[in-house]
Amino acid sequence: MSVVDHIDAYWRAANYLSVGQIYLLDNALLTEALRPEHVKPRLLGHWGTTPGLNFCFAHLNRVIRERDQDMIYIAGPGHGGPAAVAHAWLEGSYSERYPEVSQDAEGMQRLFRQFSFPGGIPSHVAPETPGSIHEGGELGYSLAHAYGAAFDNPDLVVACVVGDGEAETGPLAASWHSNKLLDHRRDGVVLPILHLNGYKIANPTVLARIPETELVKLMEGYGYRPHIVGPDHGEMMAALDETFEEIAAYRAGQADRLPMIVLRTPKGWTGPREVDGVPVEGTWRSHQVPLSGVRDNPEHLAMLEQWMRSYRPQELFEADGRPAAAVLEMVPDGPRRMSANPHANGGEVLAPLRMPDFRRYAVEIKTPATQTSEPTRVLGGLLRDVIAANPDTFRLMGPDETASNRLSDVFAVTDRAWNAQVEPTDEHLAPGGRVMEVLSEHLCQGWLEGYLLTGRHGLFNCYEAFIHIIDAMFNQHAKWLESSQKIPWRRPVASLNYLLSSHVWRQDHNGFSHQDPGFLDVVLNKKASVVRAYLPPDANTLLSVADHCLRSHDYVNVIVAGKQPVLDLFTMDEAIAHCTRGVGILPWASTDHESEPDVVLACAGDVPTLETLAAAALLREHLPQLKVRVINVVDLMRLQPPSEHPHGMPDAEFDTLFTTDKPIIFNFHGYPWLIHRLTYRRHGHANLHVRGYKEEGTTTTPFDMAMLNDIDRYHLVMDVIDRVPGLGAAEAHLRQQMADARLHARAYTREHGEDVPEISEWTWPH
Amino acid sequence: MSVVDHIDAYWRAANYLSVGQIYLLDNALLTEALRPEHVKPRLLGHWGTTPGLNFCFAHLNRVIRERDQDMIYIAGPGHGGPAAVAHAWLEGSYSERYPEVSQDAEGMQRLFRQFSFPGGIPSHVAPETPGSIHEGGELGYSLAHAYGAAFDNPDLVVACVVGDGEAETGPLAASWHSNKLLDHRRDGVVLPILHLNGYKIANPTVLARIPETELVKLMEGYGYRPHIVGPDHGEMMAALDETFEEIAAYRAGQADRLPMIVLRTPKGWTGPREVDGVPVEGTWRSHQVPLSGVRDNPEHLAMLEQWMRSYRPQELFEADGRPAAAVLEMVPDGPRRMSANPHANGGEVLAPLRMPDFRRYAVEIKTPATQTSEPTRVLGGLLRDVIAANPDTFRLMGPDETASNRLSDVFAVTDRAWNAQVEPTDEHLAPGGRVMEVLSEHLCQGWLEGYLLTGRHGLFNCYEAFIHIIDAMFNQHAKWLESSQKIPWRRPVASLNYLLSSHVWRQDHNGFSHQDPGFLDVVLNKKASVVRAYLPPDANTLLSVADHCLRSHDYVNVIVAGKQPVLDLFTMDEAIAHCTRGVGILPWASTDHESEPDVVLACAGDVPTLETLAAAALLREHLPQLKVRVINVVDLMRLQPPSEHPHGMPDAEFDTLFTTDKPIIFNFHGYPWLIHRLTYRRHGHANLHVRGYKEEGTTTTPFDMAMLNDIDRYHLVMDVIDRVPGLGAAEAHLRQQMADARLHARAYTREHGEDVPEISEWTWPH
Ligand SMILES: Cc1ncc(C[n+]2csc(CCOP(=O)(O)OP(=O)(O)O)c2C)c(N)n1
Ligand SMILES: Cc1ncc(C[n+]2csc(CCOP(=O)(O)OP(=O)(O)O)c2C)c(N)n1
Ligand SMILES: [Mg+2]
Ligand SMILES: [Mg+2]
Repeated sequence: MSVVDHIDAYWRAANYLSVGQIYLLDNALLTEALRPEHVKPRLLGHWGTTPGLNFCFAHLNRVIRERDQDMIYIAGPGHGGPAAVAHAWLEGSYSERYPEVSQDAEGMQRLFRQFSFPGGIPSHVAPETPGSIHEGGELGYSLAHAYGAAFDNPDLVVACVVGDGEAETGPLAASWHSNKLLDHRRDGVVLPILHLNGYKIANPTVLARIPETELVKLMEGYGYRPHIVGPDHGEMMAALDETFEEIAAYRAGQADRLPMIVLRTPKGWTGPREVDGVPVEGTWRSHQVPLSGVRDNPEHLAMLEQWMRSYRPQELFEADGRPAAAVLEMVPDGPRRMSANPHANGGEVLAPLRMPDFRRYAVEIKTPATQTSEPTRVLGGLLRDVIAANPDTFRLMGPDETASNRLSDVFAVTDRAWNAQVEPTDEHLAPGGRVMEVLSEHLCQGWLEGYLLTGRHGLFNCYEAFIHIIDAMFNQHAKWLESSQKIPWRRPVASLNYLLSSHVWRQDHNGFSHQDPGFLDVVLNKKASVVRAYLPPDANTLLSVADHCLRSHDYVNVIVAGKQPVLDLFTMDEAIAHCTRGVGILPWASTDHESEPDVVLACAGDVPTLETLAAAALLREHLPQLKVRVINVVDLMRLQPPSEHPHGMPDAEFDTLFTTDKPIIFNFHGYPWLIHRLTYRRHGHANLHVRGYKEEGTTTTPFDMAMLNDIDRYHLVMDVIDRVPGLGAAEAHLRQQMADARLHARAYTREHGEDVPEISEWTWPH
Repeated sequence: MSVVDHIDAYWRAANYLSVGQIYLLDNALLTEALRPEHVKPRLLGHWGTTPGLNFCFAHLNRVIRERDQDMIYIAGPGHGGPAAVAHAWLEGSYSERYPEVSQDAEGMQRLFRQFSFPGGIPSHVAPETPGSIHEGGELGYSLAHAYGAAFDNPDLVVACVVGDGEAETGPLAASWHSNKLLDHRRDGVVLPILHLNGYKIANPTVLARIPETELVKLMEGYGYRPHIVGPDHGEMMAALDETFEEIAAYRAGQADRLPMIVLRTPKGWTGPREVDGVPVEGTWRSHQVPLSGVRDNPEHLAMLEQWMRSYRPQELFEADGRPAAAVLEMVPDGPRRMSANPHANGGEVLAPLRMPDFRRYAVEIKTPATQTSEPTRVLGGLLRDVIAANPDTFRLMGPDETASNRLSDVFAVTDRAWNAQVEPTDEHLAPGGRVMEVLSEHLCQGWLEGYLLTGRHGLFNCYEAFIHIIDAMFNQHAKWLESSQKIPWRRPVASLNYLLSSHVWRQDHNGFSHQDPGFLDVVLNKKASVVRAYLPPDANTLLSVADHCLRSHDYVNVIVAGKQPVLDLFTMDEAIAHCTRGVGILPWASTDHESEPDVVLACAGDVPTLETLAAAALLREHLPQLKVRVINVVDLMRLQPPSEHPHGMPDAEFDTLFTTDKPIIFNFHGYPWLIHRLTYRRHGHANLHVRGYKEEGTTTTPFDMAMLNDIDRYHLVMDVIDRVPGLGAAEAHLRQQMADARLHARAYTREHGEDVPEISEWTWPH
């Protein structure tokens, strides 16, 4: 048999196994005539994309063998799950991971039955699928994942099949330009294969219906050398030989453009040509199951049998179900198999992050709340040394906000990745830079996901409001991690860390559109086993939290921290204790020592904490008898019951801290109901009054923003007066003073354009 | 003076006014030497993008005048707010809207002072800015908005400046292909002006640093004819003359490709060339305020004065501050002014939607819960006739899911918009089709926003899980509406309507990645004056809700409704009453007539309602003495107090319905804590137990999905036993029966691959 015959045999076997997964419960090898009871009652899956995915697998295997190439495979249309599973089974890695799905007749039967079946496996390329780092359910992220995997893997080729429907999405459209940040010496290569099967669900695709000359220009405009390939083994072989030569030249620095492949195939290729009198193969009708009435319609049943037999299963499988030698001829060995490549199970290749001692970056503090630091700037020092200590395994992503978020210290040791033109006035641009900046939150997220899932580390810094742009991507990654945690052979990967800065309370150059703290709400909808949220109120707590997050595994950590000067509250030792506890009383700000407080002032987030402290100081001044307890919350999940989150605080502890019967005024960084949602089962909940962002904002001063949302010191004092039994009417004078102070503060901004200096320069007075 | 001199004068005036807004409190006309106290204490704004935006304005005005062209302007980098404001002031429309900001010296002073000033106006192109439909704070949506505005406005040209940073975003990258859905006879034209000022915040941009040959190919690949223009009046005039000739040819059907302009300008053009020894003009350093130390640093102050005087204000403004005639020579008249074009204040041109009587589409029902319909299919009939009745003012958007979401009846009267190649096997593709399908939720959202903000109507149908893709865009639109509601001259526009189907509980072909009901949480974070969420449980309630939403203004309406068969519960009259109330008891399912119930079973969403009804039936069978009240909630906002939302139910009504002391088992479509968040202040809240989606899922049967999340009938019965005083231990037998029924149901799926027929075919038995 010739090479092309081997490839074809492999392809037919993969197609057979794919159809079998979608349709069959029994009679996997078609040893008898197909009967209705052999067919699944619910036919769930996507055939249309599958033969094309199998075609690519089959051909790439030849390249891997011939060139001993390290390669992983990303299937953009992850709904072609049967293809990835078939491939893993043929390569033997499926049975290695799941011995009960053995490489024989019984295993094939199990393989078929389990697909899209209750208690079985998902219909998509999921964490359950060996060799996968990409689910491909929500379309659009394949190419960004592929580049993420390629960075800092100089020997790797990431073959990435992009659906022509998928290519219409924004994230995918932006991803092509990832090549501008690729370093040919340090990074691997992505080979995009644009799969023009012509259709998405029920529509043709744009790229399949524009003139080919335009498509070629588009790809050239994106900086690639396109190779157009038809549905033909010979064409595909030739194109792959050429592209891998071009890749070799690029690696050797002899070419500056990488190739890509445009593969035209009929959607549902090799499936039923016509069903019930309408064309199916090569049309959108083959997207899911081309034959849907198989159990009831004898004609459909016969067509299914004929279709499956068209692959000539007797040539492909031994009588005992094992794949025939001819089929396996092109299958690579061991970790060279794409379904067993360790890069696609990132935890296997994960090197622990080398962490400098974060205490070295501590801000010296003598008296709390009397001096200020810019927390993210302090963190920049730590990140600089993390980058220096991990020159090949850590990257910092951001949509051109790294400097704006005041992390510029990192540029002392590295640059921004950039391989396009450089001008004399540019600073810190170079191939291989560890900072990845492009104005696309989608790319930052997608690259980082791909980088982490292939066993590396990183942090995404972003304006708080705009992180919502990747809500959906976050959801998908959290789901991936959640599923992975339950799969024994999936080794833990580094956590996905967000640093959200330029937050809702400190929008100076920008206004209402830049004010949204709601990412926390999105994050806390996901499983407690995956998500973590931290609001360090000063520089030293930020260092401690960041150290913890960077060392962690399999989580999504969200850190919200300001870049503007904030009061230093904790010495490093105190900060460590505070962050480890996750919540704590600030003794120096409290006046309830060795007694029950009259009121609890709780806070989370830097600006709310500042206002709470200022309110505590006002109370001490005006109501010296009042016993006030000030509590700061760094770790939001501590507020939940232990049954809801592993960080959850037992009721007894919560009751001791927050009391069960005293008013609690909680000043929160985000939307106030998030705190209610976390605490509604607590005993003290009925006494809890939360202040937070209530969607009021514009371009104005920091204190005016606080006042617009009633989180300011004066309003907090008013809240205390309104809620502490015995104050109320008795303190109407003080209440009025506070109301007047607000009016004065507002009027001052209207006149001077800035905050009253006593407010903006306020420090702890006691 | 020549035409170019007039354009230049206008441009200098706009630049002068822009710098003035960023810097000056006083001495607006520079009638005296600039002193520190004339300068704002906080310098907030973005200069870098502004001169380029002004340049485009100035040149487009000439075209408008010469061709009497209907045109609106979209500034992708909306942070160039000073430009849009300057323009409106020069054109006189600013003073028409805001008479106190008059077109004279005093008005100019106000104009300067108010910008980015507390109590003043935002720094971005905001709803406050006359002539704007695009805030441009969160970058990436300009071109989609522009196309949305152009659809069905055959005489309109939408000039759209795209930032070269913005062009790196996913949504923008996808937007170029919008031209594939444009109909040259029915639609207007978008003229994209890619503003290559070379930088984003602190980095160069990709498109400015790839070879120009590649950029040209990219634009040609997107289907445009690019015109490259340098920073020169003559080049810009020539390019505009050519492009408008090309546009005319396109309109006449004589050309099939539309032009676009690539405008290269130095960032911060005409600003300080060098500051403190480093280059500023033409570099990223001019992004915000090029001179930052003006109040303290006399050298900076002098540079500012010199910079402003470089525009020769004495030539541009009369002594009394009015713009000189030479400046205004190019300004169009009345509604031809881009800052006064009625399209940019959509409510002004809004025609009410012609609505067929939705009752005509009602499903006939005799006995509740004994027959099924596919709600979205029924809605499809209504939408078909809405489309037919409003052939030029209504569009249906979807990421290729319109058929999948079972709205295909619309194709009886219309097609999918498509002007690329058509094959014989295609169906329902045509230019001018009312259905807009491309695999990009971003484009669906962006087009619809642009379409609505220019005074038309529409609906976006989407898989529930993937609507998170546009969370951030939803946020921005909700903010836009909220601000607009407060601006008297902004007339109400049609609401943005979402139909979310293929929802979390009925993922058949897909699995975990397609399960996420959390968009509701995101939506309810926004202002009560803007957001509405409905969960109609059957076909007739869906019709009633949809009718209401389509007629409404200035809201974002979210409708979650299934496409799979669900039980018909309400006759049309009942449905109208139920939806108008927003919440109601189902008398036929309840057993508490004329007495207090022992337990309240509440539900929201189609599948949770089905399970609740089945639980009520089980309770009636097994615990006939138990008084059960079944309540269905359609309008989620009814659950909130009236202080929180205009739909909020008074406490007395809530208490009557839900009781203050009886257990309430609430079976919810989404994440359970959303119900707690809405009700935590209610008297009965301590007795409220919510079931909902708790992030458990995979590819499995519908009833298995319900069981995975404990929203199934059997679990609800167990919940009742656990919580109703007097049941508990006494009903341990029944409880065990329920647990066994779950085990049986699960085992059945594992064996047969589908649900127990008694469950999947269940109807109301009593
Ligand atoms: C972001 C997103 N929107 C919508 C869908 C629904 N959807 C599932 S498959 C599909 C079509 C995919 O077309 P293509 O990428 O060409 O894949 P193929 O033709 O290979 O199946 C769509 C729209 C999705 N999965 N993700
Ligand atoms: C989605 C998004 N991400 C990040 C930002 C932060 N940001 C504000 S301006 C800017 C650079 C914009 O560059 P460009 O589009 O080229 O505009 P111009 O150069 O004309 O200012 C960035 C990244 C934003 N506004 N929106
Ligand atoms: Mg396709
Ligand atoms: Mg720019």
